[in-house]
Amino acid sequence: MKSQSSSQGTISFATAISPGDSIDNYGVGRVLFSHRPDFKKGDLVAGLLTWGEYSIVKEGSLLNKLDPNTGFPLSYHVGVLGFSGLTAYGGFFEVCKPKPGEKVFVSAASGSIGHLVGQYAKLLGCYVVGSAGSQEKVNFLKERLGFDDAFNYKQETDLKSALKRCFPQGIDVYFDNVGGRMLEAAVANMNSFGRVAVCGVISEYTNATTRAAPEMLDIVYKRITIKGFLASDLMNVYAEFLSKTVEYLKGGKLKTIEDISRGVESIPSAFIGLFNGENMGKKIVKVADE
Amino acid sequence: MKSQSSSQGTISFATAISPGDSIDNYGVGRVLFSHRPDFKKGDLVAGLLTWGEYSIVKEGSLLNKLDPNTGFPLSYHVGVLGFSGLTAYGGFFEVCKPKPGEKVFVSAASGSIGHLVGQYAKLLGCYVVGSAGSQEKVNFLKERLGFDDAFNYKQETDLKSALKRCFPQGIDVYFDNVGGRMLEAAVANMNSFGRVAVCGVISEYTNATTRAAPEMLDIVYKRITIKGFLASDLMNVYAEFLSKTVEYLKGGKLKTIEDISRGVESIPSAFIGLFNGENMGKKIVKVADE
Repeated sequence: MKSQSSSQGTISFATAISPGDSIDNYGVGRVLFSHRPDFKKGDLVAGLLTWGEYSIVKEGSLLNKLDPNTGFPLSYHVGVLGFSGLTAYGGFFEVCKPKPGEKVFVSAASGSIGHLVGQYAKLLGCYVVGSAGSQEKVNFLKERLGFDDAFNYKQETDLKSALKRCFPQGIDVYFDNVGGRMLEAAVANMNSFGRVAVCGVISEYTNATTRAAPEMLDIVYKRITIKGFLASDLMNVYAEFLSKTVEYLKGGKLKTIEDISRGVESIPSAFIGLFNGENMGKKIVKVADE
Repeated sequence: MKSQSSSQGTISFATAISPGDSIDNYGVGRVLFSHRPDFKKGDLVAGLLTWGEYSIVKEGSLLNKLDPNTGFPLSYHVGVLGFSGLTAYGGFFEVCKPKPGEKVFVSAASGSIGHLVGQYAKLLGCYVVGSAGSQEKVNFLKERLGFDDAFNYKQETDLKSALKRCFPQGIDVYFDNVGGRMLEAAVANMNSFGRVAVCGVISEYTNATTRAAPEMLDIVYKRITIKGFLASDLMNVYAEFLSKTVEYLKGGKLKTIEDISRGVESIPSAFIGLFNGENMGKKIVKVADE
């Protein structure tokens, strides 16, 4: 994975992009100066940092020290080992309550969270299908990440039929990153007692007219649960998430994809690209070398 | 309550109407002849019966013996002590997981299930608001059933504003009987960790174009849960429901409303009336006297 290797050993200060944050963002950095005895010069930290090569972190902000000896690229701490990973792990296991053998659908499956959800689901023993916006992404999901199937939603004239084709036995769990028509199609294909975890709503970020109007009769008769969640509510599984994910990464059972651009000047295009599906995996801006 | 008293002591065979059933329906009857030793001539029974003065119940059908000495009208066994009551009780307590002091909204609040949900919520110590389709129903909810507030949705130009007015502190629990625009407005007014129990979708029964398209960003950021359910999944609380409800009824803490029409010839208009909001409380057709 190109993006992954390009970041190894060189990032001192990477900032992850997420649409909700206008000023601060989740990033990794090295302490240059500190008033607090528990953060010393040279310590590696992850937390809410401002966009830029240097950042002043005030008392009370989210900031954690990193273990410099994990052997993972620093970028992992804003992605697979950071909030993206926690969102994927906690959202899947805690919100979806999946069982081995269940049929799992993930939209935006090549995105920062989706590509992890699909792999966690495979590790549990589920049948996993992802949707993505290009043939390249679809191939990647199937050939590199072990998804059972995947489809390019832009090539489908009818999403309900696409899901019917991929899930002849119906969907038990839908990890929803997009909302809109895809959510409607997933509900239409769900089995009784199906669960939808609503993690993101890409369709509404870019076009408010595409709001999902799922068939409520399906929701009643199939006893479907639709549940929104945020990673901040999942801190109770943080320790479990971290130990399992480190174990999977070290054992080669989990792959992460990163899409790293360089320099503060790349921030606007990186940010806009998120809404156009330009990224593959976690979008990261590397604003400074060590 | 006119309909309630008119049924006392006279019904031998009442059948409840629910839109999902085309042939059988939930009713009360007296056994005339039986091949089974556990059902004797003269026993009162409740279960799935065909529309008509006489019914043949096959082996394996849902049929339970009734205690003839409860002192309640027989009609109660198709309403407040039957599936309507179980749906209200189990849907509220099991699906909504309410806490005392929480703010509860019930739509179709004067309907067979809604009028019970609102009273269960008051008994728990919640703040309760109901919506209904006439001023008469609104008055009944506030003056006779103890709802904290109620509004006539037909008189409101903007449902979001109506709910904002009734819930200045937001909604924690929405017991949804109608779907459509009301569900959207409720989601817009929900507090964080709000719960929606989807019991029925009147708006979709009559007009499939009124499907709800709630703001999914609200669902994510406010971590809202929307959950469909059926009474048949709530049998685990049946014993608790029955003992509590009998206690409440005997103590005068719970009132039930019934809307009884007479004769098989009233079935079509009774059925159609359900979709036009003509009934108040549980719609029952009394097809035979004893």
